[in-house]
Amino acid sequence: MVSIEEAQRAILQEITPLQTEKVSVFQGLNRVTPEDHIAPWDIPPADNSAMDGFTFDYAGLTDNRLDVVGFLAAGEVRTAPLLPGEAVKIMTGAPLPPGCDTVVPIEDVEDHQDWIRLKAVKAGNHVRLRGEDIREGEVVIPAGSLLRPQEIGMLSAMGCTSLAVYRRARVAILSTGDELLEPGSTPAPGKLINSNSYSLAAQVIDAGGEPLLLGIAADTLESTKEKILAGLNADFVVITGGVSVGDRDFVKAAIESLGGEITFWKVNMKPGKPLAFATLEGKPVFALPGNPVAAMVSFELFVRPSLLKAMGHRNILRPVVKAELCEPVANKGGRPHLVRGLVSRAGEGYRVSSTGDQSSGRLSSLILGNGLIKLPPESRYAAGESVEVLLLDRGFEMGQLT
Amino acid sequence: MVSIEEAQRAILQEITPLQTEKVSVFQGLNRVTPEDHIAPWDIPPADNSAMDGFTFDYAGLTDNRLDVVGFLAAGEVRTAPLLPGEAVKIMTGAPLPPGCDTVVPIEDVEDHQDWIRLKAVKAGNHVRLRGEDIREGEVVIPAGSLLRPQEIGMLSAMGCTSLAVYRRARVAILSTGDELLEPGSTPAPGKLINSNSYSLAAQVIDAGGEPLLLGIAADTLESTKEKILAGLNADFVVITGGVSVGDRDFVKAAIESLGGEITFWKVNMKPGKPLAFATLEGKPVFALPGNPVAAMVSFELFVRPSLLKAMGHRNILRPVVKAELCEPVANKGGRPHLVRGLVSRAGEGYRVSSTGDQSSGRLSSLILGNGLIKLPPESRYAAGESVEVLLLDRGFEMGQLT
Repeated sequence: MVSIEEAQRAILQEITPLQTEKVSVFQGLNRVTPEDHIAPWDIPPADNSAMDGFTFDYAGLTDNRLDVVGFLAAGEVRTAPLLPGEAVKIMTGAPLPPGCDTVVPIEDVEDHQDWIRLKAVKAGNHVRLRGEDIREGEVVIPAGSLLRPQEIGMLSAMGCTSLAVYRRARVAILSTGDELLEPGSTPAPGKLINSNSYSLAAQVIDAGGEPLLLGIAADTLESTKEKILAGLNADFVVITGGVSVGDRDFVKAAIESLGGEITFWKVNMKPGKPLAFATLEGKPVFALPGNPVAAMVSFELFVRPSLLKAMGHRNILRPVVKAELCEPVANKGGRPHLVRGLVSRAGEGYRVSSTGDQSSGRLSSLILGNGLIKLPPESRYAAGESVEVLLLDRGFEMGQLT
Repeated sequence: MVSIEEAQRAILQEITPLQTEKVSVFQGLNRVTPEDHIAPWDIPPADNSAMDGFTFDYAGLTDNRLDVVGFLAAGEVRTAPLLPGEAVKIMTGAPLPPGCDTVVPIEDVEDHQDWIRLKAVKAGNHVRLRGEDIREGEVVIPAGSLLRPQEIGMLSAMGCTSLAVYRRARVAILSTGDELLEPGSTPAPGKLINSNSYSLAAQVIDAGGEPLLLGIAADTLESTKEKILAGLNADFVVITGGVSVGDRDFVKAAIESLGGEITFWKVNMKPGKPLAFATLEGKPVFALPGNPVAAMVSFELFVRPSLLKAMGHRNILRPVVKAELCEPVANKGGRPHLVRGLVSRAGEGYRVSSTGDQSSGRLSSLILGNGLIKLPPESRYAAGESVEVLLLDRGFEMGQLT
């Protein structure tokens, strides 16, 4: 039985980047560019005023008095040079006339319309120099960068209106089991509502991918094969349930009879031991356990990093922090246990408590929490001891204004 | 001049929640629900098997041998009770027949088809009890909850296919200035490419809002008024540039002549002093500075929390952490300085260094960083000292698998 880390390595080894697509600069947000973005010109393109004020040649200053010989609005250009002792009123963003090197803001001037008296001045102040932000030919955004709002702004400043990014991963999602009904159906004895398709779809969207719902496969080899085949239109196939040792567990058999190669089956972890990874017609196929919590936790550990890698991301694993236990916890079992926990800040560190009953069918254990406490096999911790916690979301670290 | 915190308070006081809309359960991801979601039934709806195995009445066990008298697939129901010493083969998810209380997994059994020998058994094991996750009538997801993938899964398990969430904030974005050209235009002397509209639009999307680009207002009162009026179709108006004291700064005048009330003008901060907040026909209007960095930083501090509040979020402020300085920094000025910094992990804490030249036109200072170091006026810190840093993004805390 492979460990969590071995399984992650084995899976990620099989994941290659998706193709790229051209999108408008907007749609590039939170995606990864496969190309170096090189400045086509200096930014700013010319020395210009950083303030509304007056510009002149500092070297030509004899006293603190200057004659105002013109007005230069933003967007306007003056090519005629100034004489020593002359100034031009200039608006923010307007290029400095030839010979000018200093701007004094309106606030620092006594304004007599035709002439001004400088209250304070420093050579070269309040000028944005040509190329001070970016020089022509510079690699401003290297290949492999994640595009945040500031990169979108910079690309726009470089005149970019569309660019290549890695395609969003399309992820086919299949639930299996004759006991399942879709939400919206009338509940019936012996039946359960299919929630895995929707929690997994949300996890796909959250990772930046596009879910493709395949519905529910009946507990037959034929139905399972047919649905998996339909999923091969996508980039990834994620299946839940039907991967155990039961008489009605057809997922492994279906993958194999379609020619898929199973890399491993069963991971040494709790929740979520029955987990198979396969490649089928070159597509990664994940067969996750059917229990709601086990399915979501397995997605977190194995599918999410794979989707991120395929979409060009380098940082693909959730952060792991140390947290102080609020109460004693123990893992009596022989497998590493990922206990759902509620993490909060404690000074500059973290504290964590268990979300109660850890049954792998109990979705509330995830609703009440925001992290996974990693407990090694047969381990026991007292309150106040430090444990490792994988953070699923970090909303708890944001502030409220009261 | 108001402080950053006073400005935030004054603004947020004016922000009320947007209306709600009905969306499919999917589209609720990362949004906030205004309603309590109450369980319509017990989850699970009946005692059922957590494993593929055999079920029986533990009290009726006399030795470790049981006769197998039936097979119960998931989705099937057996109403006939068992006799003591009898077992039924049962698949994961199938409801226990009347009188049965224990499941023993296939792995823990010697299977002789007609009868089995138990290798290990514990009373009540491997059974998911009716209502053990959720009880009918329980408030499972309270009003005001942010919907993460686990909430989407739980709502689905409760049969929910659509639900109410706060509407996405529609944010009109206006750049001002005769010097501006849209990306895609041929650069011309004296002109600059408008990047603010795009970085701000990306910030709006990142906060979960919908940007509405109004383009560029010319430096006239008429053009500025006309564009602002067009923006009132949205829920928020965000303007950059034209808010200083220059002869061509028409934004304040335009807001006032349209009947808007300016709450304050100028915030004691760097970058970004000239910043006005107004309400106009009941809509919040933000007039941000025109410098690219000042515009983005002002958005972060004032617009983003407002959008989040309007969309029902409670946690609306970026996290602030303590970080150890990699090199000395100083703020010689009289205003609090938000220095763009590059934050990284250092053991269980953080370290930070400045991104270099902090000119408010230099977008690279944000590209190279991921946080804002808060330096009080006239302060000086040595390398190794601790400063407060607002984290803009936390990608740096995610792991890479090498």
